[in-house]
Amino acid sequence: MRNTIEEEVLKRVLPSDEERRDVLAMGQRLIQTVGEVAGVPAMMTGSVARGTWVRGDKDIDIFMLFPTEISREELQEKGLAAAYGVVEKFQGTSEEKYAEHPYLKAIIEGYDVDLVPCYHVASTAEMKCAVDRTPFHTRYMLDHIGSLREDVLLLKQFTKGGGVYGSDHMTGGFSGYLCELLILAYGGFTQFIEAASKFRFGEVVDIEGYYPDKKSIRKIFPEPLIVIDPTDKNRNVAAALTPTRFSEFMELARDYCAAPHECYFIPDAPTTMSKQDFAAMLEKRGTAMLALSFKTPGYVPDTVVPQLRKTMESVKTQLAAEEFPVHRAEVSMGPDHCIIIFELLAATLPKIIVREGPPVWVHENADKFVEKYLGQKDNAGPWIAGDRYFTEVERKYTNAADLLKDSPKLFTASLGKHVRLSMEDGYDVLSGEEIWSIEFAGFLSAYFARRSHAVRKLRTIQDI
Amino acid sequence: MRNTIEEEVLKRVLPSDEERRDVLAMGQRLIQTVGEVAGVPAMMTGSVARGTWVRGDKDIDIFMLFPTEISREELQEKGLAAAYGVVEKFQGTSEEKYAEHPYLKAIIEGYDVDLVPCYHVASTAEMKCAVDRTPFHTRYMLDHIGSLREDVLLLKQFTKGGGVYGSDHMTGGFSGYLCELLILAYGGFTQFIEAASKFRFGEVVDIEGYYPDKKSIRKIFPEPLIVIDPTDKNRNVAAALTPTRFSEFMELARDYCAAPHECYFIPDAPTTMSKQDFAAMLEKRGTAMLALSFKTPGYVPDTVVPQLRKTMESVKTQLAAEEFPVHRAEVSMGPDHCIIIFELLAATLPKIIVREGPPVWVHENADKFVEKYLGQKDNAGPWIAGDRYFTEVERKYTNAADLLKDSPKLFTASLGKHVRLSMEDGYDVLSGEEIWSIEFAGFLSAYFARRSHAVRKLRTIQDI
Repeated sequence: MRNTIEEEVLKRVLPSDEERRDVLAMGQRLIQTVGEVAGVPAMMTGSVARGTWVRGDKDIDIFMLFPTEISREELQEKGLAAAYGVVEKFQGTSEEKYAEHPYLKAIIEGYDVDLVPCYHVASTAEMKCAVDRTPFHTRYMLDHIGSLREDVLLLKQFTKGGGVYGSDHMTGGFSGYLCELLILAYGGFTQFIEAASKFRFGEVVDIEGYYPDKKSIRKIFPEPLIVIDPTDKNRNVAAALTPTRFSEFMELARDYCAAPHECYFIPDAPTTMSKQDFAAMLEKRGTAMLALSFKTPGYVPDTVVPQLRKTMESVKTQLAAEEFPVHRAEVSMGPDHCIIIFELLAATLPKIIVREGPPVWVHENADKFVEKYLGQKDNAGPWIAGDRYFTEVERKYTNAADLLKDSPKLFTASLGKHVRLSMEDGYDVLSGEEIWSIEFAGFLSAYFARRSHAVRKLRTIQDI
Repeated sequence: MRNTIEEEVLKRVLPSDEERRDVLAMGQRLIQTVGEVAGVPAMMTGSVARGTWVRGDKDIDIFMLFPTEISREELQEKGLAAAYGVVEKFQGTSEEKYAEHPYLKAIIEGYDVDLVPCYHVASTAEMKCAVDRTPFHTRYMLDHIGSLREDVLLLKQFTKGGGVYGSDHMTGGFSGYLCELLILAYGGFTQFIEAASKFRFGEVVDIEGYYPDKKSIRKIFPEPLIVIDPTDKNRNVAAALTPTRFSEFMELARDYCAAPHECYFIPDAPTTMSKQDFAAMLEKRGTAMLALSFKTPGYVPDTVVPQLRKTMESVKTQLAAEEFPVHRAEVSMGPDHCIIIFELLAATLPKIIVREGPPVWVHENADKFVEKYLGQKDNAGPWIAGDRYFTEVERKYTNAADLLKDSPKLFTASLGKHVRLSMEDGYDVLSGEEIWSIEFAGFLSAYFARRSHAVRKLRTIQDI
């Protein structure tokens, strides 16, 4: 069933025997060392443990399994101590990271190694925190994936090539485990990709048959793709897959089935644009671009990016309420700065605006409203339409940038916690070519060329 | 109870004994002549018949009462013939008008005389057309109004002074009969105006007590003021009173009760503006004004004005759909031309616009959409957001005037029948000071100084 393109791709993504041997040996040494240092068992998880990693993606995840008797605090303490002990033994380097509790991200003999403490539980029903689930995923997959490993690699490479791989919030795409389950459910890459080309929202995959009918599942899980975790019937493995990414994937699958091409397995090369090109583009479009720029909060993208999007929506609402027509808006989290850009059809407006007043029969408010605007010279109003007062007043912001610069007003909006804290420390309102910087040259280029992944593939194929 | 202001007003608006004698004598002669010419009885209706006319407003309404046996066609034919016969006898002049059926508007010995044919029915239950009801109103009022005639005159003059008198569609205000019923219900001008100052939407007046409870009435009649016709329990006499006019009246009543002033009984002097002032005003406001201008259809304002408003709303929706921000809009029906003005915050926009496409899983439409926009050079798209395609495209109208000039597009909107016919004969799109003409110098002046009637009174009193 596999076509020659897929065979060629497999040759590229299958780990070499040497890579396979080396990484598994390294894993064994790490597990052994955990035992020596902390006296607890450990296991490899992730794609390396399951033999489903794409050549070169050989990050090693070591889960250290602590007894359930110890407290959360002890787990964190002992877990970190064990991890540091392991790193020391190998003379590696490390950095603390935070998920549900702290873990260590280390570099050991050239490998990226995550050393994660968790509870050693007998079933997912006894889980004490989310990371306890990971070992079950690995055990399940080792029991079931069998001869389908190559198909998993193809799907992973397909989703990577299509820009929909990665379950972090910035991507909102497919996790490795999700790819594995889908291949398992459909029995192979070809079978799955053909099924996916006909998918709609509300697709259900329930390998273990936990639910008697699909309708009942859709009532429990609101997401467009529902893949019941075989190790935990209450969890949708595709919960982090956004509707947009799922739609993009359906489109990629459909286009690939119609006309297979190797480019579907190759990620798009990132583009970039110079300050001159950026200025020329704005000039050509005739729009006005403004940006909020501030220091990137010290949290992972999964935390920060949703807050940036929330802030963007809030500020868009504020701009629209002041009648500034927003063409498009977008966010980007750079290593040093975050920016939220607003491309406007008009950044300046005449100085009058219509303000709505109270109903005529709310006498106290009506009196205040009339008294306030009675003496207006040039503006019309107050007048009545229906049961309410209206009046023309001086527009507060004749320039959209003035609104963005008005921080007390801006901070009334719903911003995320960390974005708010960073902005309260200070933010800049940038306009036009001021917005360009090396940090965002790629982001801005992608903004102007925004296209679905499948459309980009088609343009590549047709050389547009 | 009457204050000195009201006493003074009454002196001005009470018809003189001579006016009273003359107009009633004229009425009698007309009734007699109808008998001679057509052999049917006739009666005077309207405010003259009921003795509730404001000095000088001495239009005479003569209703010619034809037997119910004749057909509608016969009624129209015989009715018009009788009317023409009467006019001839008095050597008057006349013009045919159309309500539910044709009638004659005549000038006879200096009086404005309406000669209206209707059926002579014994009760409103036997009515064959709406005009048959009018004689019953007159009979009812003659039986009941008694000593309250002066209070009716005060209320009529108050509503005239406040710009809310007249039940035509252009005004949407109080009819004479409505004023009479309200005075009757409340027992006098002072009593009514004090009650009205505390009115809210959903006020109910049911003089004959046809309905056991107010709640049930509100379910039948949706209007903000409900005055059950004593001669026909199924009719709300205040049905033509718009929510806006009713609100304005409540405001006038409240302000007048708080501080009575003679200006409430004096209509605002019409204002006007020169072309220079108009141009200067637009310059000052910084807005862009466009207008549709076309020949006035040969129908009464009650027919044309609602169609103008409908057209205005439709075109506003079209402008908004193309992202042109409309500040305000208004209509005016002049003797020769109608205009619909649109004051815009921006009349020109950048040449790009976001277009929404089909959902990704509607494959045929999705393919068409992608194919159409795949090769775009400068614009972004197609991209996917949620389950739908979007793309940037060239904006069709970068100038709002181009949209208004695009008649096939404009005519897809919901316009009234007669407005549509007139516009199909040709219309102009005017811009800025081109909009000004003598015909609309008053309308444009009022547009810029739009204020509720009570606010205008307060400004008069406070000399603002």
